[in-house]
Amino acid sequence: MNRFVLSLLISFFAIANFGASASEQKPDITEYTLENGLRLIVIPDRRAPVVTHMAWYKVGSADDPQGRSGLAHFFEHLMFKGTSNYKNNEFSTAVSAIGGQENAFTSWDYTAYYQKVSPSALAKMMKFEADRMRNLVLTEEVFLPERDVILEERSGRVDRSPSAILGEFSRAALHVNHPYSIPIIGWEHEIAKLEIEDALEFYERWYQPWNVIVVVAGDVDPQETLKLARETYGKVVATQEPQERKWTKSPRPVVSQTLQYKDERVTRPTWQRSFKAPSYMIAEEGEAEALDLLSTILGGSATSRFQKEIVLEQELATAAGAFYQGSSRDMSSIGFYGVPRGDTPIEYVAKAIEEQVDLLLKEGVTQEELDRARQAYLKTIIYSQDSQVTLARIFGSVLTIGGSVEDFTSWPERLSKVTVEDVNKVARKYLDRNRSITSRLLPKEG
Amino acid sequence: MNRFVLSLLISFFAIANFGASASEQKPDITEYTLENGLRLIVIPDRRAPVVTHMAWYKVGSADDPQGRSGLAHFFEHLMFKGTSNYKNNEFSTAVSAIGGQENAFTSWDYTAYYQKVSPSALAKMMKFEADRMRNLVLTEEVFLPERDVILEERSGRVDRSPSAILGEFSRAALHVNHPYSIPIIGWEHEIAKLEIEDALEFYERWYQPWNVIVVVAGDVDPQETLKLARETYGKVVATQEPQERKWTKSPRPVVSQTLQYKDERVTRPTWQRSFKAPSYMIAEEGEAEALDLLSTILGGSATSRFQKEIVLEQELATAAGAFYQGSSRDMSSIGFYGVPRGDTPIEYVAKAIEEQVDLLLKEGVTQEELDRARQAYLKTIIYSQDSQVTLARIFGSVLTIGGSVEDFTSWPERLSKVTVEDVNKVARKYLDRNRSITSRLLPKEG
Repeated sequence: MNRFVLSLLISFFAIANFGASASEQKPDITEYTLENGLRLIVIPDRRAPVVTHMAWYKVGSADDPQGRSGLAHFFEHLMFKGTSNYKNNEFSTAVSAIGGQENAFTSWDYTAYYQKVSPSALAKMMKFEADRMRNLVLTEEVFLPERDVILEERSGRVDRSPSAILGEFSRAALHVNHPYSIPIIGWEHEIAKLEIEDALEFYERWYQPWNVIVVVAGDVDPQETLKLARETYGKVVATQEPQERKWTKSPRPVVSQTLQYKDERVTRPTWQRSFKAPSYMIAEEGEAEALDLLSTILGGSATSRFQKEIVLEQELATAAGAFYQGSSRDMSSIGFYGVPRGDTPIEYVAKAIEEQVDLLLKEGVTQEELDRARQAYLKTIIYSQDSQVTLARIFGSVLTIGGSVEDFTSWPERLSKVTVEDVNKVARKYLDRNRSITSRLLPKEG
Repeated sequence: MNRFVLSLLISFFAIANFGASASEQKPDITEYTLENGLRLIVIPDRRAPVVTHMAWYKVGSADDPQGRSGLAHFFEHLMFKGTSNYKNNEFSTAVSAIGGQENAFTSWDYTAYYQKVSPSALAKMMKFEADRMRNLVLTEEVFLPERDVILEERSGRVDRSPSAILGEFSRAALHVNHPYSIPIIGWEHEIAKLEIEDALEFYERWYQPWNVIVVVAGDVDPQETLKLARETYGKVVATQEPQERKWTKSPRPVVSQTLQYKDERVTRPTWQRSFKAPSYMIAEEGEAEALDLLSTILGGSATSRFQKEIVLEQELATAAGAFYQGSSRDMSSIGFYGVPRGDTPIEYVAKAIEEQVDLLLKEGVTQEELDRARQAYLKTIIYSQDSQVTLARIFGSVLTIGGSVEDFTSWPERLSKVTVEDVNKVARKYLDRNRSITSRLLPKEG
């Protein structure tokens, strides 16, 4: 999820800043806060007569109560059920009747719901969305069959995917004692025991106007949008005081861990190594930006060290890359992965990646490759696809994890200030093999 | 803690059963339950004019609230502070004034307090112990300085011990998503944030008569002891209904993990591998007994496979053994360890242990070695030291984790029924390397 958001962040700047020279257009974002605490963000986008309307809840899997993993994600299902005003699925039917699109998604940090419709339907969307914020009819008749649906969903997404199975345990190892250790969809044995009371309590605690950021992007007028929001969301009465999100913290990492999973279904053995690293939200000044560029230099572009050396030159891997998941509310990670070419043993790829990393740690990066990586990053941005949903999603996610519009619009400028020294410093600070989590996904021997 | 209890269990039978042929003495244990729910166990032991008095609370580190690890253990300190009737330390002073001994201990499953005194002082001990069950004066003045004491204790026990540092993370890996994953003393950053309110809530929730098992072992009369208990413990009024102990469960283990910790202070590199295995409390019939004998055959006696092959024959290790921690309330573990001799690489010891285990899994154990292991187990029992504190501790721990006196006295008989097939079956069921947790403790390279 976070990696997706990061790529969304990147795409935004294609529109907002780097595209500016062509279109002379900068986003003129308006922010409002209603009396009940709900925040409204309006992003004008008049390229087409369409509007994207999103409701972001500042609650995600990391807020699942202890032993009740999967509860936040469960609402991705429950929110499409009936309310005291509308029948089961009536909202979805209304969206498709007017040719609109809708969806929902959950991360550790947030849960969001959206529709893409024609601007004339915005009032209706807001009415429906405001309604289900407080008026869901949660009964066992609704809840229990959906629990089976979710267990089936988990079975399809995780149990049938060896990499997902390993990923759950790698994540648990990286985030010991932190709620990022649980799967978004929940542990199977905990989903199976979720009860209607859990859902009622969670809904009452978190589905409140003060916990929502509504993002509207499209061919709309901010003042008119505010008026519509007041008439719909503005009428939602909070039934709880704002709640603090209380997350446990991980102990300081001091050991290295290697996880190995063998499964006869594995067709692409994969090696991956992760290190804890701060997200943009909690990093010291400039560190997150340097981590982004470090990741690009190592394995985030067509001219990255991994790509040139391991994929093209040594021909050991069909893929070798790096990632930094900067967009989360709490401690995140940086890491690398490699997929061996043909019958190349996974150890060869691991060793080649380690050599590249050791070399970087020893000799540092050069000004030239930093500049090239930064340009690559910006090029990715410039050539990245544009979409209104993406635009809305960027703002929703950044604001929901605690960022501001300003934090966000100043990002490219901050990236431009990153020096060779900054990159070398974060590399040496965070890429400590003695505190890493390594995952090995292998086919089961016959 | 659990391994200690197991060795205690063993010593008990030296007295209770196997010693019987010599002394014709069997423990004539009496059990009572007071009206407020407190249970009293009286174990006559008239060998000396001394009595051991223990109060066992069915609450331990596994009951620490989320993010508040260390709270159960914190009470091991707080319970020696002042009450509304006695000054700080007055109980301890009274115990030493009469030449008595006292102590306290915490495990994941329980917390216990005890005194060893002359029988004439039993009434006084009960009075003090009953008093501190509900009358502790918990203020910030008492609480905050003790928090610093505990942080210092943690620093001494964990931070100064490389094996303890690694052990905490190995445990977390073995018990993902289960409260056995937390250290008894607590994670440092969570101890540091414990507050007086946490202690007050915990005390109110768990320090109640219905949550206590009082064990009295010694030169006492059961009826007279019951009378004393009624006059002291019987007057404690519960201020809460009995609470259920709600523990989260681990997902089914499917990956193998290797943890490595390097520290310049390491003088004895150590290799260890653990597998999840059910405790006596949750095992299928006969499995725990078979696991006990499997562990003895592999590495639990002077004639074990590891001892003969790896320590004596191949001379690879100064120590190589096996353990099974049968005495816990929930899922436990079986495993092996080895300490290389001289400069022998740790991998050699690991490989030698793996070979022995693979051989056992392939060919099974023999009737002869099972009989020999059983005899060794019984011999350990017979020659084990006897002590009244041990005797009381055995019963306290077994009853506190949910066992009964009968479960317990029938143990040797159940051990005698274990067959070769039973041992081979549990070996193949639980010693699955693809689901194991391996720990490597190594000196830091220069």
